[in-house]
Amino acid sequence: MSNFHKFLMFRVVTLQRAREEVERMWKTPKVGLVGIGEGLGKILAEEVRARVDFPPFDRAAMDGYAVRAQDTFEADEENPVILRALGLVRVGENPRGTVRERTCVRVETGAPMPKGSNAVVPVEFSRGAKYVEIYRSVAVGENVIRKGSRVKKGEKIAEKNQELTPQMIGVLAAGGVTKARVFLPPKVGILSTGGELVPLGGNLPEGKVFDINGPMLSCAVRELGCQAVFLGIAPDEPRALRRKIEEGLRACDALIVTGGTSAGIGDLLPSSLPLVFHGLATKPGKPTLFSMLRGKPVFGLPGNPLSAFFVFRELVAPNLLRVSGRQMEQRTVQARLSVDLTSERGRQEFVPVRLREEGGGLKAEPLRMGSDAITLLRLADGYLDIPLEVERIRAGEKVVVKLLAR
Amino acid sequence: MSNFHKFLMFRVVTLQRAREEVERMWKTPKVGLVGIGEGLGKILAEEVRARVDFPPFDRAAMDGYAVRAQDTFEADEENPVILRALGLVRVGENPRGTVRERTCVRVETGAPMPKGSNAVVPVEFSRGAKYVEIYRSVAVGENVIRKGSRVKKGEKIAEKNQELTPQMIGVLAAGGVTKARVFLPPKVGILSTGGELVPLGGNLPEGKVFDINGPMLSCAVRELGCQAVFLGIAPDEPRALRRKIEEGLRACDALIVTGGTSAGIGDLLPSSLPLVFHGLATKPGKPTLFSMLRGKPVFGLPGNPLSAFFVFRELVAPNLLRVSGRQMEQRTVQARLSVDLTSERGRQEFVPVRLREEGGGLKAEPLRMGSDAITLLRLADGYLDIPLEVERIRAGEKVVVKLLAR
Repeated sequence: MSNFHKFLMFRVVTLQRAREEVERMWKTPKVGLVGIGEGLGKILAEEVRARVDFPPFDRAAMDGYAVRAQDTFEADEENPVILRALGLVRVGENPRGTVRERTCVRVETGAPMPKGSNAVVPVEFSRGAKYVEIYRSVAVGENVIRKGSRVKKGEKIAEKNQELTPQMIGVLAAGGVTKARVFLPPKVGILSTGGELVPLGGNLPEGKVFDINGPMLSCAVRELGCQAVFLGIAPDEPRALRRKIEEGLRACDALIVTGGTSAGIGDLLPSSLPLVFHGLATKPGKPTLFSMLRGKPVFGLPGNPLSAFFVFRELVAPNLLRVSGRQMEQRTVQARLSVDLTSERGRQEFVPVRLREEGGGLKAEPLRMGSDAITLLRLADGYLDIPLEVERIRAGEKVVVKLLAR
Repeated sequence: MSNFHKFLMFRVVTLQRAREEVERMWKTPKVGLVGIGEGLGKILAEEVRARVDFPPFDRAAMDGYAVRAQDTFEADEENPVILRALGLVRVGENPRGTVRERTCVRVETGAPMPKGSNAVVPVEFSRGAKYVEIYRSVAVGENVIRKGSRVKKGEKIAEKNQELTPQMIGVLAAGGVTKARVFLPPKVGILSTGGELVPLGGNLPEGKVFDINGPMLSCAVRELGCQAVFLGIAPDEPRALRRKIEEGLRACDALIVTGGTSAGIGDLLPSSLPLVFHGLATKPGKPTLFSMLRGKPVFGLPGNPLSAFFVFRELVAPNLLRVSGRQMEQRTVQARLSVDLTSERGRQEFVPVRLREEGGGLKAEPLRMGSDAITLLRLADGYLDIPLEVERIRAGEKVVVKLLAR
């Protein structure tokens, strides 16, 4: 390790500053073409224009008879006009004949209008088949959807930064668009470290614990629309760890490594990586580090799963969303705090809370303060985000609760 | 077709009634075991209990020395007590020795507590290595996380109907749970019909239009966490269509067929299926049908993509979510209508609107009333859901807008 890296060690930064540094160093969202069927939830990286008119030809809007409107002008319920039927155009067929004076063509809803016709008489205002009695007059264009009347070829049908929702995918299909340029959510490698870890599913030998961060963070990454590649539990040895990290970076766009991020005797990560910052002024979450290796970001998160959860959510997630072209949407509610709460000055603190209805409002109950266990979160409706400078909030004060999905 | 089916044809029902009939006939959600890593977003079909204690053994909460608390009672900053160090227990190691009177063991954060020890003195209150000076007294249990103190083996850690969020997956992993019984979202086949349809991506011959419903509804199904299988564009012939439907039902739990649902000359679907209802008292969406075939639901949706979109959202989606153990969450906002609006009595009407900020409130502008094109939805922030009995809403009246994701 160079002195440069040593010099940067223990550069504790605020969460706000950490976010900015990550944003400064991990700049460019990746952009690529995807088939619109695979684009669900992705964000358009450029505007999209229709490649075809929609509809692509004049279409009958109703089942009925395609006519020249002028031939019907004298028709009413008492005095039908009689038109000679030339045939039938079904949906999807290409009409051959031409409608001339006093003739008509039977058309299905959606069928192309035959040449010469300019309106459709709905079938319920007609009688007969070969010589058709027409009991209503129609105006030019009536019951016809004109070619390009909904969207013209070349017209803008989607904006940059618009999300590919199901309905937008429908809109693009209508415009004949098969592929769209979108922000490609990063492929994120997840690596657990810690000599005490064994993979979930096997036996639990004495002194070992199941790896929680691996499955939890893989799912958290996927929930944001990114691809997650779980790289397993890294060997507890500096060179092997470094090799595993390099391997992960070759296959992925970003890496999340959990554990080994403190400055203790068993903490390998700080000495294995060039550090941009090491130490986050949050509680929990202090032993967090960030590194850029071969131009790719490596997030070092605390091994404690509750800490890893909060650092993922507050530092990693906003950046994953940013490079996916999205923004974090954090739903919040207001509540009144149920008890006095003290917080360490100089550390931004995250406190899981349970919400209870009380007197028409919400009461936020901190969940067993001081406990450090992920298992707390089974009871949490959300959490408080207490700013650096706040040392005390009193029972009854209004607080903002960041909601967690339940 | 039997007379029974003929008798049931054109049984127009309200949306409310249609939902109930589908619910009555398509009852049982499927339940199955999934690995928790594949469970993201799914709903637990039963409560879950921890399979192991968490933590699974007494753990050091800090880097420091595992001691017998009683040996430190006389220690303070001025008068250290001296304990003989027996060795080091790293995280993940199984401690061998026993801490007896006036001895201690160096422990890493998270390491198992050696036999005989009952507290940890943080490393910053110690000096020396072989004979360690201890500058602070600790109480029994201090800086130790007791076995099972967060969760006891057998304790309930998740409720039935709870969603597998990333944090809940963390909680289950902590409890040693590898698989969970969840509601299995159905596998839904999507089949487009219509002689005018060609698959997106190729050329557009005269008289043909691109299939919009296929990609749009496949994505809409996936957005709800269900698996979508696009079965393509069905041949325009009754027996072939029926064969395609049977094929789809063998591979899937439910089928959505679009197009051919009217009662017109080219509409094959009503005569191909035993109908539970045919006709929905909505606008758009009237040519909708529902059938149960081999115990599986078949939704026949209008070929018009805008109609198909609304019927999917209002009839199919709530049922897909229900059998997945979920509920529809429809976000709404209040707004004032920008213009007078008339609605057909006896039909529940869906009107896409654009929202504008105006005078501190929201104004809802109906999007080109009477237009039938999916392309409208590129501009829609949401839609009005106008009840059957309402015939008129006046400009300035308050309306509830169902939001669409943008």
